[in-house]
Amino acid sequence: MLAEIITIGDEILIGQIVDTNSAWMAQQLNNAGISVKQISSVSDDKQHILTALAEAAKRADIILITGGLGPTKDDITKNTLAEYFGVGMVENQAALDNVLRIFEKYNRPMLDINRLQAQVPANCEVIVNKNGTAPGMWFNQDGKIYMSMPGVPFEMMYLMEEEVIPKLKTLFKLPVIIHKTILTVGEGESFLAERIADIEDSLPAHIKLAYLPKLGSVRLRLSGHGDNENELRAEINDYAAKIVERVGNFVVAEEDIPLEKAILNYMTEKGLTLSVAESCTGGYISHLFTQHAGSSKVFFGGAISYSYELKESILGVKNETLWQHGAVSEETVVEMVEGALLNFKSDYAIAVTGIAGPDGGLPDKPVGTVWIAVASAKKTVKKKFTFGNKRQQNIERSATSALFMLNNLLKDVEK
Amino acid sequence: MLAEIITIGDEILIGQIVDTNSAWMAQQLNNAGISVKQISSVSDDKQHILTALAEAAKRADIILITGGLGPTKDDITKNTLAEYFGVGMVENQAALDNVLRIFEKYNRPMLDINRLQAQVPANCEVIVNKNGTAPGMWFNQDGKIYMSMPGVPFEMMYLMEEEVIPKLKTLFKLPVIIHKTILTVGEGESFLAERIADIEDSLPAHIKLAYLPKLGSVRLRLSGHGDNENELRAEINDYAAKIVERVGNFVVAEEDIPLEKAILNYMTEKGLTLSVAESCTGGYISHLFTQHAGSSKVFFGGAISYSYELKESILGVKNETLWQHGAVSEETVVEMVEGALLNFKSDYAIAVTGIAGPDGGLPDKPVGTVWIAVASAKKTVKKKFTFGNKRQQNIERSATSALFMLNNLLKDVEK
Repeated sequence: MLAEIITIGDEILIGQIVDTNSAWMAQQLNNAGISVKQISSVSDDKQHILTALAEAAKRADIILITGGLGPTKDDITKNTLAEYFGVGMVENQAALDNVLRIFEKYNRPMLDINRLQAQVPANCEVIVNKNGTAPGMWFNQDGKIYMSMPGVPFEMMYLMEEEVIPKLKTLFKLPVIIHKTILTVGEGESFLAERIADIEDSLPAHIKLAYLPKLGSVRLRLSGHGDNENELRAEINDYAAKIVERVGNFVVAEEDIPLEKAILNYMTEKGLTLSVAESCTGGYISHLFTQHAGSSKVFFGGAISYSYELKESILGVKNETLWQHGAVSEETVVEMVEGALLNFKSDYAIAVTGIAGPDGGLPDKPVGTVWIAVASAKKTVKKKFTFGNKRQQNIERSATSALFMLNNLLKDVEK
Repeated sequence: MLAEIITIGDEILIGQIVDTNSAWMAQQLNNAGISVKQISSVSDDKQHILTALAEAAKRADIILITGGLGPTKDDITKNTLAEYFGVGMVENQAALDNVLRIFEKYNRPMLDINRLQAQVPANCEVIVNKNGTAPGMWFNQDGKIYMSMPGVPFEMMYLMEEEVIPKLKTLFKLPVIIHKTILTVGEGESFLAERIADIEDSLPAHIKLAYLPKLGSVRLRLSGHGDNENELRAEINDYAAKIVERVGNFVVAEEDIPLEKAILNYMTEKGLTLSVAESCTGGYISHLFTQHAGSSKVFFGGAISYSYELKESILGVKNETLWQHGAVSEETVVEMVEGALLNFKSDYAIAVTGIAGPDGGLPDKPVGTVWIAVASAKKTVKKKFTFGNKRQQNIERSATSALFMLNNLLKDVEK
């Protein structure tokens, strides 16, 4: 069973927003046993939408469409769908009731253009959108399913989870698709490939191996298609076990999780706690940890010490250290990490101080200079990095490097 | 001049990664006067890539391709391009020198599969990728430009900025594309549309208006095409001025920046400073501010107080307040925000404490309960929110709500 996703909206094509909806939808579809053949982003242009619908229908059985359902003039998806199917527009009572309910709930007067939200192509089944005024619209035409949803993420997510996926499961006997991901850290893509070349060559046609490198880590992903879930899972697990046996030193997780989640899992299991002292990463490392459910078991919190004063008052960095060596120095990062351990009373701590840029560089400390330290009561490790001159990349690479260093320290001290 | 972007890789179609490259590339192209007609993500499948290339070439003059250039077996873009153009593969000396240079730099032995990185389709012009071993490949065939780049963001970004965009500018006389965005907060999309209906109706055909709503804010974007940059800019600025005059109360920025950047700009101009006390947002608010260059002029930093202990020790929240009212309470959030003001010595502070979930809910405080306070020396404003049960959404909605509250307080106190 193949699906395509079409996202409609000029804001994607001019790069004003990143399309995060499609990846989320693709995950949901894959979990249900539906492969995504293509994701296309097209403009708010009638002819272009019509072409995209026709091309998608040639390749796929299910076409999911997001965007272009607002009440304003630039939103043309609904009328274009009516034209595509050769039908007129009708007012739908359930959609209208939903619009009325929402305006009542927020106690706002309803405008004429809001009432237009209840107009839908005559051949559609309305799927009520409890989180917004734009209705979901389901079409079953010429053996293909089309589903049009709003582009607002939490409205789309509700419709997908509660309505679309369950409906597709009742309509089709879906094949089994299983992915298994192994997260490795510390070895390059081509070296991993060489080490497991014979395992890769022995894979049957219905199981594929992919290498997904990202800033020093590589995910190895096995993907299989089949009919029998248990058999396929056992088969994929066998190949995964062979790979893990071969490259075990570099494996930090045998599931599709990011490195900080692997660290959280490890620390939770060992009953260890963590705090941070972030300067140039400005909260990003904390955000990486705290986005995961259950992080509060491990993560106490910490300081974002952008200013000299906060480095002194919260972390206990000495005034003379800052003035003598500077905020971005080995001496300061060590006092920061040890101050975090002491003041926040965690088993482990991370400290980062650097010049994220684009301003603030010095002749001996150019933009991209970053000091990172990780520490436990038993050991402190610190390292200087020289990244580039792009602020966002410096923040991300600092965070990733700090996670690598913490992961190594944990394995070194706790094993 | 029309472009299409094709991203190749199963990881996008199974939702394992979000395609952030395309939005960035689309921005660069738009700034250069090139419109993006469609963005397509396709699988690592030869036939599918061939079809996508042919379809894109029918619609666009420039086809930018990312992904599928790694040294491992799942990467087939290069051979597929050779087949598409009907040519063989050759070893390219510049590409080989680059691979050798990189392995030398990192002092690693080179494998046979790394040498294969220097093989390219015979009809391509190699654009050396200084940041990685996969070469950029430029094709000029039948009046169309094709450019293949690695999917690793910082490699692709380097090639786009330093090579592709400059090369396109010398080849083509590009039209002018200008966007102007007005950020509004506090009024819904349809109400804004009603207020400015006559201005929208008066727009000429070459200027479009789009409404981009997102969690309580709406961006109004004017986009125009033309030949004369100064004339077009003046024309768009005129319409923007009319809109701002009409809905001025809700306007927080007259450029395409997020709310936290508008706040930073306002506070920088007024010489004001900010600190935070984040619990359930776990560093996310700090990250929003500190991702922007120049934020250190305003943002001192603050505390991520995930634990009771840190709320007491860094922020001075009273032990009895926590035990009597709980960490998620009006009393605690007020002590947090006032503690931040006092301890971190900033003019303004934000405090957030809540239950992000999915665990930790209580009968009287379900998951999604969040208290937010913003304060200056003159005034403290606090508010309780009840969001949903999705952790990531609760974090984002808490952050957005805190920004709204701070924006209102600033305008209230400072005007």
